[in-house]
Parts: sequence; C-alpha cells; structure tokens
Amino acid sequence: MYIIIVGAGRTGSKVIELATQDDHEVVVIERDQKLAEETSATYDCMVINADAASKDIMLEAGIQEADALISTTESDSVNLMISMLGKQYDVETLVSSINDPQHMDLFGDLGVNIVESPHELNGQYLYRTVQRPTIRDFMEIGSGAEIFELTVEEGAPIAGLSLIDADSEGLLPEETVIVAIVRDGELNIPRGQSDIQADDTVTIFVKNGASDRITDAFRES
Amino acid sequence: MYIIIVGAGRTGSKVIELATQDDHEVVVIERDQKLAEETSATYDCMVINADAASKDIMLEAGIQEADALISTTESDSVNLMISMLGKQYDVETLVSSINDPQHMDLFGDLGVNIVESPHELNGQYLYRTVQRPTIRDFMEIGSGAEIFELTVEEGAPIAGLSLIDADSEGLLPEETVIVAIVRDGELNIPRGQSDIQADDTVTIFVKNGASDRITDAFRES
Amino acid sequence: MYIIIVGAGRTGSKVIELATQDDHEVVVIERDQKLAEETSATYDCMVINADAASKDIMLEAGIQEADALISTTESDSVNLMISMLGKQYDVETLVSSINDPQHMDLFGDLGVNIVESPHELNGQYLYRTVQRPTIRDFMEIGSGAEIFELTVEEGAPIAGLSLIDADSEGLLPEETVIVAIVRDGELNIPRGQSDIQADDTVTIFVKNGASDRITDAFRES
Amino acid sequence: MYIIIVGAGRTGSKVIELATQDDHEVVVIERDQKLAEETSATYDCMVINADAASKDIMLEAGIQEADALISTTESDSVNLMISMLGKQYDVETLVSSINDPQHMDLFGDLGVNIVESPHELNGQYLYRTVQRPTIRDFMEIGSGAEIFELTVEEGAPIAGLSLIDADSEGLLPEETVIVAIVRDGELNIPRGQSDIQADDTVTIFVKNGASDRITDAFRES
Amino acid sequence: MYIIIVGAGRTGSKVIELATQDDHEVVVIERDQKLAEETSATYDCMVINADAASKDIMLEAGIQEADALISTTESDSVNLMISMLGKQYDVETLVSSINDPQHMDLFGDLGVNIVESPHELNGQYLYRTVQRPTIRDFMEIGSGAEIFELTVEEGAPIAGLSLIDADSEGLLPEETVIVAIVRDGELNIPRGQSDIQADDTVTIFVKNGASDRITDAFRES
Amino acid sequence: MYIIIVGAGRTGSKVIELATQDDHEVVVIERDQKLAEETSATYDCMVINADAASKDIMLEAGIQEADALISTTESDSVNLMISMLGKQYDVETLVSSINDPQHMDLFGDLGVNIVESPHELNGQYLYRTVQRPTIRDFMEIGSGAEIFELTVEEGAPIAGLSLIDADSEGLLPEETVIVAIVRDGELNIPRGQSDIQADDTVTIFVKNGASDRITDAFRES
Amino acid sequence: MYIIIVGAGRTGSKVIELATQDDHEVVVIERDQKLAEETSATYDCMVINADAASKDIMLEAGIQEADALISTTESDSVNLMISMLGKQYDVETLVSSINDPQHMDLFGDLGVNIVESPHELNGQYLYRTVQRPTIRDFMEIGSGAEIFELTVEEGAPIAGLSLIDADSEGLLPEETVIVAIVRDGELNIPRGQSDIQADDTVTIFVKNGASDRITDAFRES
Amino acid sequence: MYIIIVGAGRTGSKVIELATQDDHEVVVIERDQKLAEETSATYDCMVINADAASKDIMLEAGIQEADALISTTESDSVNLMISMLGKQYDVETLVSSINDPQHMDLFGDLGVNIVESPHELNGQYLYRTVQRPTIRDFMEIGSGAEIFELTVEEGAPIAGLSLIDADSEGLLPEETVIVAIVRDGELNIPRGQSDIQADDTVTIFVKNGASDRITDAFRES
Repeated sequence: MYIIIVGAGRTGSKVIELATQDDHEVVVIERDQKLAEETSATYDCMVINADAASKDIMLEAGIQEADALISTTESDSVNLMISMLGKQYDVETLVSSINDPQHMDLFGDLGVNIVESPHELNGQYLYRTVQRPTIRDFMEIGSGAEIFELTVEEGAPIAGLSLIDADSEGLLPEETVIVAIVRDGELNIPRGQSDIQADDTVTIFVKNGASDRITDAFRES
Repeated sequence: MYIIIVGAGRTGSKVIELATQDDHEVVVIERDQKLAEETSATYDCMVINADAASKDIMLEAGIQEADALISTTESDSVNLMISMLGKQYDVETLVSSINDPQHMDLFGDLGVNIVESPHELNGQYLYRTVQRPTIRDFMEIGSGAEIFELTVEEGAPIAGLSLIDADSEGLLPEETVIVAIVRDGELNIPRGQSDIQADDTVTIFVKNGASDRITDAFRES
Repeated sequence: MYIIIVGAGRTGSKVIELATQDDHEVVVIERDQKLAEETSATYDCMVINADAASKDIMLEAGIQEADALISTTESDSVNLMISMLGKQYDVETLVSSINDPQHMDLFGDLGVNIVESPHELNGQYLYRTVQRPTIRDFMEIGSGAEIFELTVEEGAPIAGLSLIDADSEGLLPEETVIVAIVRDGELNIPRGQSDIQADDTVTIFVKNGASDRITDAFRES
Repeated sequence: MYIIIVGAGRTGSKVIELATQDDHEVVVIERDQKLAEETSATYDCMVINADAASKDIMLEAGIQEADALISTTESDSVNLMISMLGKQYDVETLVSSINDPQHMDLFGDLGVNIVESPHELNGQYLYRTVQRPTIRDFMEIGSGAEIFELTVEEGAPIAGLSLIDADSEGLLPEETVIVAIVRDGELNIPRGQSDIQADDTVTIFVKNGASDRITDAFRES
Repeated sequence: MYIIIVGAGRTGSKVIELATQDDHEVVVIERDQKLAEETSATYDCMVINADAASKDIMLEAGIQEADALISTTESDSVNLMISMLGKQYDVETLVSSINDPQHMDLFGDLGVNIVESPHELNGQYLYRTVQRPTIRDFMEIGSGAEIFELTVEEGAPIAGLSLIDADSEGLLPEETVIVAIVRDGELNIPRGQSDIQADDTVTIFVKNGASDRITDAFRES
Repeated sequence: MYIIIVGAGRTGSKVIELATQDDHEVVVIERDQKLAEETSATYDCMVINADAASKDIMLEAGIQEADALISTTESDSVNLMISMLGKQYDVETLVSSINDPQHMDLFGDLGVNIVESPHELNGQYLYRTVQRPTIRDFMEIGSGAEIFELTVEEGAPIAGLSLIDADSEGLLPEETVIVAIVRDGELNIPRGQSDIQADDTVTIFVKNGASDRITDAFRES
Repeated sequence: MYIIIVGAGRTGSKVIELATQDDHEVVVIERDQKLAEETSATYDCMVINADAASKDIMLEAGIQEADALISTTESDSVNLMISMLGKQYDVETLVSSINDPQHMDLFGDLGVNIVESPHELNGQYLYRTVQRPTIRDFMEIGSGAEIFELTVEEGAPIAGLSLIDADSEGLLPEETVIVAIVRDGELNIPRGQSDIQADDTVTIFVKNGASDRITDAFRES
Repeated sequence: MYIIIVGAGRTGSKVIELATQDDHEVVVIERDQKLAEETSATYDCMVINADAASKDIMLEAGIQEADALISTTESDSVNLMISMLGKQYDVETLVSSINDPQHMDLFGDLGVNIVESPHELNGQYLYRTVQRPTIRDFMEIGSGAEIFELTVEEGAPIAGLSLIDADSEGLLPEETVIVAIVRDGELNIPRGQSDIQADDTVTIFVKNGASDRITDAFRES
C-alpha cells in the first residue's frame, strides 16, 4: 500500500514504525524540522518537512496515488482539512485521530474512520485500573457489556474449580462467558469441565460489565 | 476513596473528570499555573500548583492518607519517583502512565499498575484501522488471539446464515467464537441456531487473530 | 443580523468596525487574549477569547441562531472547519478569507463565499501601480477585460476633446467604453458629446485590458 | 525595468512573483534570514538579507539605477524612509503599501503612489459579501457610484429579458449601466436589444451604488 | 514650552530629566510598557504608552500645540517619520537623535536639528582618551582645530611659567590660545603675564589640533 | 600600540574602527556570537567570542602585553572587573565607559580614565538644542563657563560689525571671548578689528555660559 | 548583626534561612521578581527587587550600617563590585561566593573572605565518592593531609581491635591519628586502649591523605 | 574504571575534569546540545547528546559494563531513575547529587551514595564565614563536634605558647584537640610541648563545636 502519514509526533511515529515494518511505501509529512529529520533517519520512508494543511504539499506527497491517508495531528481542523483533500482525490482509506469527541460528526460526514483521542482513552484506562486493579485490559461493547482480562490470584474462591462448579457455587453472575484461558503461555477455549487455576489469565465476557462480585471471585479473599 | 492525581494535562484531566464524577475525594498536583487554575475552576477537587517530584509537595497533598495515587505525566522519571513515594507511604493502589515501554520493569519492581503510553496505543489503533477498516474496536489477548467488533454489511456472505450454517460453509476459521451480537441496540449471547443479519454488530474471538478470511465473510463481496 | 466574526486581527477588526457601525448584533471569537480585550474595549460587540476551531466554542457564540459567519483567520484549515460547522448549523451566509488560492474548491464545495487573500490582492495592486502608475483603481472581468480609473493630466492628448472626437482621432482602442466621469466631485455618465477635461477622473472599460495606448492618451506627452 | 522590492512577506512575495514573471531585473531586500533564503531559492532575483531602512543597504541594492521602488513592509515609518531615499536618488516610480490611512498625506507629499492596507481592503470585501452575497467583485468610484459583478440566478426576474424590457419593467434603477455580459466564457458589450440569461455574469455600473432592488432583479425570488 | 519627547530609554530619560527640571510641560511617548510606567512614576510629565510612529498618537500627544519635538529612538526611520509629522504640524523646534551619519541629509532636508549617535560620540571619546590620556574633554572645530582641557601635572615643563615665558621657551605651538584657567575652583581668562601652576585645569585652543608637543608641556617629563 | 577592546556593540565598534584605522594591533572580546563574527569580517583585528569577565579570557587576549585596555560594555560591574584585571597586569592605559555616574569613584580609585555614559551626554545635547537651537556644539568648563559654536544668521545684529564695534554696542556680555571664526571653510583667530559676517561659524567662550543675550546677537531679529 | 545578602537563588536562600533563624536583621537584594517575592513571603527579612550592582541600590539596602555583606551571585564581576562597595563603606565582614578559582586574588586584594564555587566543591565530592566509596565526608588540609570519616564494616580487619593492636598489626600507616569515634550516637576521643567496633563512624587524620591501605582496613575483605 | 557521568553542567564538568585526568574511560550523557559539544571538545571522553532518563540511552552509554555511574543533574527524579537503572544493571558504584535533602531515603533504599546539594553546602559555608570569619574550612562530625582550620593572628593570646601552657591558662575548652599545625608550608602533628606561633594554620577538633572562646584565643584581642 502507498500510505501517507501526517504528523510524526508520539502517535504518528508509532504508526510510521508499524507501517514501515510491514514494508508499505510510506510518505510522512511533518511540520517540525527536528522531528522530520529524526523520522527520516530512523525509518525507511520519505519525509516532507512542511505544513500538511496545503493542497500543494499533499500533491507533493502523492495524494493522487495514495491508498491510505492517516492524519495524526493534535489539531482537529488540520486533520479535517487533510481528510477533505483525501476525499477530493479519492483516497480509498481515510483514517484520522480525533481530539475533541464533539467533532466526530464532521469527520463522519466525510466518511473518515476516526480513532478517539489517545488522552481520552488513556484517562479511562488509568481510572479503571484504580477501580478494579486486578483487571488488566478491557473492551466495552454496546449496552454495557464488557470483555476483560483477569489474573487468578493464589487462594481465590474460583481457583481449582471447573467452570461448571464455579457456576453452581454462584461465583459468577448470569450471562457471563469465560472466553479464553491462558496458562503457561498457552491459550485454550474452555469447556464446562475445564478448570481454572491460580495464575491463569482469564478473558471474561459479562453482559452487565465488570462488578465486585466477579473480581472478588478471582482475588484472594 | 482519597485519590491523588498528578498532572492535569489532556490525559490527567480525563482521569479527574471520571474520579470527580464518582464523588471521590480528589487532590490534583499540576506544575503549570494556567492548567492548575483551569482545573480548579472546572472540577470539584483541590489543586496544588507545584512540581510533584518532591516529598514536601506529596505530603502537602496528603500522601499519608491516600488510597490511590495516579501519575499521568509525560516524564517516566517523574512518574517513577512519585510511585516510589507512594510505595514509601503505603498507598494501596499505585497507577501510572508509562511513556517508554522499556521502562516497564522499573515500575513493575515497585508493584505499580502501569498503563501503556496513549501515543503507542493510539498509533496501533490508527494503523489497525487502515489494515482492516471494518473492525471497530479490538483487544489483544496472549498468544496472538484477538477479540474484535465488526458490523455486518448488506450482502455479506454470512448475512442471513445461522452460526451452524456459517460454520458448515467454512466461512469462519476454526477456534472462532462469536461472543456477542448487538442488534437494534440489544445485546445477545448467540447459540448455534442464532442467525447473523446485516447491520448486526458482532463481537468475535479468534484464536489466531483477525484475518482477511474472517473480515471478508462480513463484508459485501 | 446576528453575525459571528472569527478573528480580530487586522482584517477581522475592519469587518468588526463595519458590522458594528451598521448596528448588527456581533459576536467575535479571537484566540489572542490581548487582541480580544482590545476588541471588547473598542467595539460594541461580545467577544469570546478562545480558539474558534471547536464546536463547543461555536455553540457558545450562538452558531445556531447566526445569520452570517465570517471567518478571517490566516489558517485555511481553521477557516474551513468553521465553515463546516456553519453549514452543519444551517447558517445562511458563510463568508471566509482564503489564504491559498488552491484551496478554493474545498470552500466552494461547502457553498462558502470566499474572498481572496489580502496579500495576493495587495501584491497585484502594487505591481500594477508600477506598470501603469496613472491608474488608480481597477477590477478584472472575465476574458481579460478590465475596468479602471485614470486622472486626466494637463496637456494630455485627450484633454479638451469630446468622446466622439477622441474616437475619430483614434485615441482609444475599439471596444472601449468611458463609463463615468468625475469632475469637481460630481459623477456623470457621459454621452458622445461629453468632453473630457484635465483633472477629470475617468472610469474606463476596455475589452482587452489596459494598454499603453490608452494610458498614453490620458498623460501629458 | 530595474525594480527594487522591499519586503518578501506575503504581500511582497506576490509582487516578486509578478515582477519576475515579466522578466524585470529584480532586487529584493528582506530583513528576515529565512524569508530571504526562501525568496532567493524560489524566484529569479537578487536578494539582500538586511534591514532596508538604511542608505547603505539601498545603495547596495542599486537605488541609483532603479526604475521603480516598491515598499511592502508593515511599518509605515520604514516605507516612508525608503520612499524618501527613492526620491533623493530620483527613482522614477515610487510605490508603497500604506498601513494606516491617516499617513496618506505624508506619502502624498513625497509623490509616492500608495496602495491601501491589504487588511483594510479585505475587511471591506468580506463584509460586503455578507451584505450582498450575490455580488462577486466590486469597485467604488467617487460620489457613491459602484461597479460590480453579479451572476444571474435561474428564475431571476431579469432572466430572459432584453435590456430594454428590463428597463421598461422597472427592474433596474435609473442611471444604471450594464457594462458587460460574460456568457459561456465570452464577453460582450450589450446593446438595448441584448438579452440577459440565467448564468450570465453581468458587470453593472450604478450611480448610487448597489441596492436590494438591483440584486433582487438577479436572484431567484 | 510644551515639549513632546519620543522615547524614554537611556537617552530619552536624560532629556526628560532635564526638561522637567526646568518646569516645561512635557509629554512623553514610549512604546515599552514597563519603561512608560517607570517614567510616569519618576518624572512630572504625561506619558503615553504607544508606538509614536502614528499620526493618531502624535495628535493625542498634542503635536498641534507643541513648541518642540525631540525624537530619541534608536530607529532612524521612526525618528524621521516623527520629524515629518512635526513639520506637517508646524512644530517650531524639531530635534532628533540620528543613528547612522549617512542619514543626515534626510533630516537636514526637513530642517531638523540632529544630534549625532551617542555611540559614535562615545567611541570617539574612548579612543581619544587612549591617544592622549591627559585630555579630559574636547570639542572639534572646523578645519582640524580643537579646544580641549588638560590638568597640569606636578613637575610639567610649563608649571610655574607665565604665558609669555612659555611662549618664548617654545613650549606651545603657534596659533595656540589658552582660553581659560581654572584654579581652586575659580575660572580666569588669562593674560600674557598670567602664570600656569601645577593642578590648574587649562582650556586650550589649538588651530591644528592636539599634538604630543602640547600635551608633553603639561605632563611631568 | 597593542590595544584590547572589550565589547563590539555600537560604542565598541566605533572604537574598533578608529583604532584599526590607525594601524594599532587590536584584540576584541565580544560575548555575542553574531556581533563577534561581523566584527571579525569588517575590521582588521583579532576577535575572541567570549565573556571578558574572566581572567582566562583576558590572558588569552594578551593582557600581559597590552598597552591599553578599553572597556565599552553597558555593565559597570563588568567594566570594573576588566579594569581590575588590567591594573593587576600593569596595563599602562585603562579606559572605560561608565554607565552610572555614581560609580565614578570606584573607577577613580583604580586609576581608570572613564568616559561618561553616551546616553547621558546625548540627552544633554538633545535638550540643549531645544533650548538654544542656533548652537551647534558646546563644551562645559568648570564654574559655569562654556565654549560653543554658532552660525551667524543673515540680518543678525552682529553681522557686519568688527569685534570692537560689537563690544562698544554692548552686543556681547563681559568676559566673552570670540575664540575662532570659520569663514568659507577657513579658520581664523580673530583680533579686535576682525569683523563678523553672516554665515560665519563662530566659536565663543562665555564665562557665565550661553544666554539669550548672546544668541540673540547672532540671530536675525 | 545587620546583614545584607545579595542573591536569593539556591545558594542565597540557604544563607537567608540560616541568618534569619539566628534572628539577625537581614536585607536581601534579588534581581528576579519571582524569587524576590517568594523570599519575602518565606523569610523574615526585607527584600529589594533590583540589580545589586548599583551604588544606589546598596545605599537603599543600608550598606552604611551593615555589619556583614554576603554576595552569592553566579557572576564574579557582580560579586566583585558589591565587595568593592562594601569596602568603600567600611562593612566589617565581606564574604563572597567565587565562581572561577582564578579570580581569587582579585577578591583577596580587597580583603574579602571567599567561598569556592559550590559546583567545584560538589564535583570533587562526587568524584571522591567514586574513588573511595566508604569515605563519607572529608576535608583537605595543607600539604596533602586529609581528615575524613569512615564507617567500619562488619568483618573489617580493624573491627574489634584496640588502636594499639591495630598499630602493631600495621593496619594503619604512620602519622595517622584517629581523632574521634562515634558509636551509638555518642562521640568519644579515643586513647590507645580504645577499641574500634563494626558500625563505628571513625574520624581519621592522615598526613599523606586517604589511601587504599587505610580504607581496606575498615572494609570487609 | 569505566565511568558514566550524567550531566555536564557546572558540577558535572568538574567531575568529568577529575575523572579524565585520572585516565578513566568516561562516557558523558548531556541533554543540552551546546554543552554536549563543548564537553566533547574539551575533555577526552565520549559524549552522548540525549536525555539520560531512558533505558535506551543508558544502554547506548554502556551501563552493562560500567563500574561507576555518577548522576549530577539538578532533578532528583532524573537522578533517582538513573540510579534505579544502575542498580538494575549491577553497576558497582552508584553516586548521585541530591537536591532536596528530604529525598535522601529514596536514594538510600537503592544503596546509592549521595552527595548533598552544592547550594545547601555553599550556603552553610558562606554563613559560617560571617559568624566566625577567622575559620577557613570546617567539617561537621556527629553529635555537634567539629573540625576546623584557623590562622593564628599576630598578638593572639595563644601565640607563642606551648599547648600545655595554653591548656593551663584555660585558653582552650576541654575536649579540644589540636590535630595539626601547618607552619611555613610544612605540616606537623603537635605534642604537648609543641608551641603555636602567629601565622600558623591550626587544625582543631572540638567536641562541642566552634565557639567564641576558641576563636578568641587565636585572634588579636
């Protein structure tokens, strides 16, 4: 793929790293001279040191042939203008960071795939970790359902039980599904007879989201 | 809970918003005067305008009574020192942003729950969206397994089939689990007879991660 | 009219001056604190000191009730985003400065009336003045036609002649129309018998634009 | 011509572009090092990186042989001093930007052709567009008369009428002259029988300036 | 007198000090806010904190009634424009600092009394002191003549001699006039019989300027 | 002479110009890199780009062999320290700018020849010019006496008179000496019969300083 | 005592803390406004916010009555000028920081007690700690002698021996004196029979300075 | 030894100077580009221009093979993080500057040898010099004991006495030990019969610290 990436800041440089690892043809536009030079020296890509909010620059970057255009700047107006230029030149995949969730519909009207502000996401993660420190990673699904990972503590109520027994002892709320168990680095899709052991990392789906009742089952009481 | 939040930047302010919404007792430490004043005016919390990398300041913030300490600065050395002070004063929950993944073990040795750099995460999301534009949200589980959300397009091969039929037609790779289906805003845990319709948002677990074979089943061919 | 003006710089402040003189209800958004304060002190308008590239701020400025939205910033991406917000909220008249002529179509697609960069215009005027110093003001019409003003010098070939005589002496190229003559502060629409005198200010339409032949007719030879 | 242009900012660079396109011999004086270097790299001209408000520098630029001197800085005192030096060395054509209209007479006393501040002009255009959005370009003539361009809307009262009929129906105020009509890219000087069609771009002279009555005749009612 | 002083820097503040000591009515214009405030607090004068290169500001300062206008800024273009405004409003006495001696004629043409750059003068004094360390103060007159002050050292050849004897001993070159002698704080105009003593401060006029022959006569050999 | 000059600012560069013109061996110490480079390119001298308030740097500049040390910085403490180093290494002639007259004795104790602040001097000159605009240059001598230059205006009371007649008509106060007369570029020491003509430039010594009575004698009444 | 302290930076503020704790009358002069305000708010002293390198300011601070004058700035020229002023006004005790050891004699000539640059000292301490990590604090005496502190390690050769036995076993070089032993927080002046135990902190004088032989005697081998 | 030194500021550069003089293999990490370049040009060491608070950079500096790691920055959090990295890679000697004494235990827990802030130390020295100007250098030992140096003044009570006589006359308090006497550049360890002469520099240990009684014995009364 021919990918144009706008911005080589902390977010942009991660995108550049991933895209160049996969051997895509990558063109980067970065306004800051020092960042532009560092990017050019570090990754296998072409770097244009200019302000991308300009049709001239986007043409120089080859927008007419680009398969994807990823805008990572911290200014929604710049991301928006770049997406408009991308649409004008029929770039197939338009992706953009969005900094203020209220601007979502402006991007949506253009058919741009947006990714929420890293700072919003990060704030949620940090706070969730304080609320339920045992949960490692999580994903929200519509209607309040959640999928999350837990590590089973030594001496937790559920440790050593099969899923059926855990269920019959009422350790798990209804409409809870144990999706996967990672033990000693190996992942298994559990059945009813599968047991849960201390130190397992368990991926759980809960229709009503994480609650104390669930996390308590996996912690040493 | 008595929560000390260090940093009121873009990430920190999201944490402050969430923590004050839940009526926790919140003390914020922010070095930048303007940010400190804005935080004080916007949220129901106490704000100390100072550099948190100082035992004096942390004592002034009440570290001796804090239940949780969340460090959100963009400097790993500052986050680390704050976590050390938190440990010294036996704060129960220590959470910190981490900016360079290589520093993970320094925090791990202190027993700090860390949350990866927002910029790293964001970069992955942006790039993933280019690779598989139909996937909305996703979570990586150990050993290459992934859980992700897709919306079923009108005319996709899988649209209108039951899970059993989709399986027998070989539309889904082995060790794939349809964890949940959201239809008209309602979430269901599907059984074998459950069918998949266009416009459903489907949560899928795949042992070997997302592949073209899967996403193709859900897109109009 | 309820008019929102974005930017109170050198261009914006002229717009504010004109709009408040006509007793419109004016709301100004200006990012720079000092400029915002000066504007508030000088003109009869409400001033919001913030970055306008934000839906929040535009709502605070009353975009939902605005009749006109004038964007005067030196950043085309900001002007563009403001215009998009204006369109989203059905503001009847959208006007914007444009800084790079290449971005014209982006604004055109949104139905925004644009005004070319002041610096472009000014550059043309300065250079034109060097080319034909006797011409005071001019306007370009499609296909190379121009309308311009000249002051008739004492002793110029055309001074003292009627339009008919000037024509028969071949002083003016074909398809030239003398649109108006200002003499002693009074404007007249000339007929064939009208004469041209020294010190008259004459407005001339020429199908092929100003040329030496025309300006020579009005200068002392 | 040998032209010295002072200032290579946004206005100055337009002048430089025009003057070098016409193959004049151009010397540019620009104080800012970066701008000076860019100008030197972009245009075919000599660039001196210095403050022009110095006789030494003006001599170095060849003021003794210059045919024209164009001063485009944003400081009236610098423009004035440069014009004085130009007069001292008998430069034939002196042109200068003027930033504050009150300083007009200082320049006038020196015999300098001045061009009003771009920001003033631009502000007037933007505001005029809000007042009469159908007008595209306009020029003010003494005593309140104006010349302006309009595009005839589909279904406008005047569409399809000859000038004589439009007049007899009272669609146009007295002392209004249709100077030119551009149709399908071709410009014509209309006579009484000429008709006006939708999509024509019409140049109109009105002794008392644009009014609703006129613009209404050209808009869809 | 009603005096307007432009600039309250190091030079300007000395002028302000002298003018207010003599109870003139003084208006000061100073661009720098801090300097303007200090001036207002220190001297009995009105201070306008603005850029003086503007007719508006000069009118606010009362240029129409001023008897004198003293421009002390370090920019010759600003000094020049202020002097032009002073001339336009018929200020009787126009005085200005000049920074580059080459600009002298621009000021001269306006009838402005100029005072050479303090830095030029100072440089001459410092260097002269190295050349002839015994000379305290000096003034150059046309054609190479100089007037200067010396203090007679103990044991100098001239000490104890009358002027006539000094002459007959050839201690002084021809066309040298001892203009004044200050002894014990009292000044005398010497005659031929007057004698010169050690520690006298002597003011000398020499047609061909100071030379070693003269200074040697006054130093201990 | 081997001369070290500290500071290449506006004052210092004049000293450097004078000293290099006389072919002295000159070493310049200047802290500002850009100034240092310009000095090195413009004058025939060695330039050290460093802060001179350091024994190391002064040794590098050759203080041990210097005949004269001229300190021109705008900081009295730096000038003082440099003079102390000069004294320590027995430099024969020490000269320094002084910025605050109160610090005179600190320099005096070290045996340094000081030159008053250029800004003080300049302020006096500017103000004097307002008081007596006809006086061109002047020098103050102890006890209120002054020497100054005047140009005789056409029609002045003294024009055409011999010195004796001027005296007998009481045009000049007592104890006034006409020291020199410059006519047509030639300087003469006048006697009693010498006459004064319009346009002569006259150097006058007055025991009680310049007064209106004197300047009136030389102006057109 | 009446003490004037110049500079309220990191060094100066420590001096101010100590001097105000002892209830001296303290006047502080600090150039930086923010530092001056903080000092005034924190300590019981008068603070003047000005540049101290000025006789005016020093008089305002009361130099005529001061008993001591402590100069702590990072500029030797400023420290020097302040000391000169202190000497001029007969301040009894003059103390100054010195930043460049080469300037020591300039201060010495004035009779100022100087304290070496904190950075020099600190650098020596850090490096010494790398050379002999067991040494805690040390002081250099003339001719290479040193006094230093060591803590006796468990299992060190000297642990458990009396001084006499340590000597006879040749553990200590000649001309070594054990000046003091601190054990359990109590200090004793040892005699020959006194013994040395693990964990004692021992103060040792060695005529030829610390060597491996000595430090080895106190470390676990 | 292989030594990594973090920071090349005023403290760090002293450490670098000492370490390179002893021919150690030195790697310096300095964030500021200009300082890094100067260090590289001045000392025989490798310099990395980067922020040291990063595992990557420390690995690049060779932390895995380093014998000593000296952290000299003015930020305790950076010093702390560097020390943690040093501990992780088993660097044998870890030394760090400490800026706030309250952070001592954080470093102590890591087994880092710390050196107190240079500014704290310097402040104590300056103030001590005011209290007892005759004391030259001093060292504090636990429990209030001190060792210090004095120079014996001409005419001091103790001058000319033997230690025994001084003692019997009660000139020295109990538990005072004269540790060393430097006379004419030679150091001696005194016995009871040794005498003290004017100009001797005497090193004294006093159990209760310096007091007026002691310093008076050594000063001219």
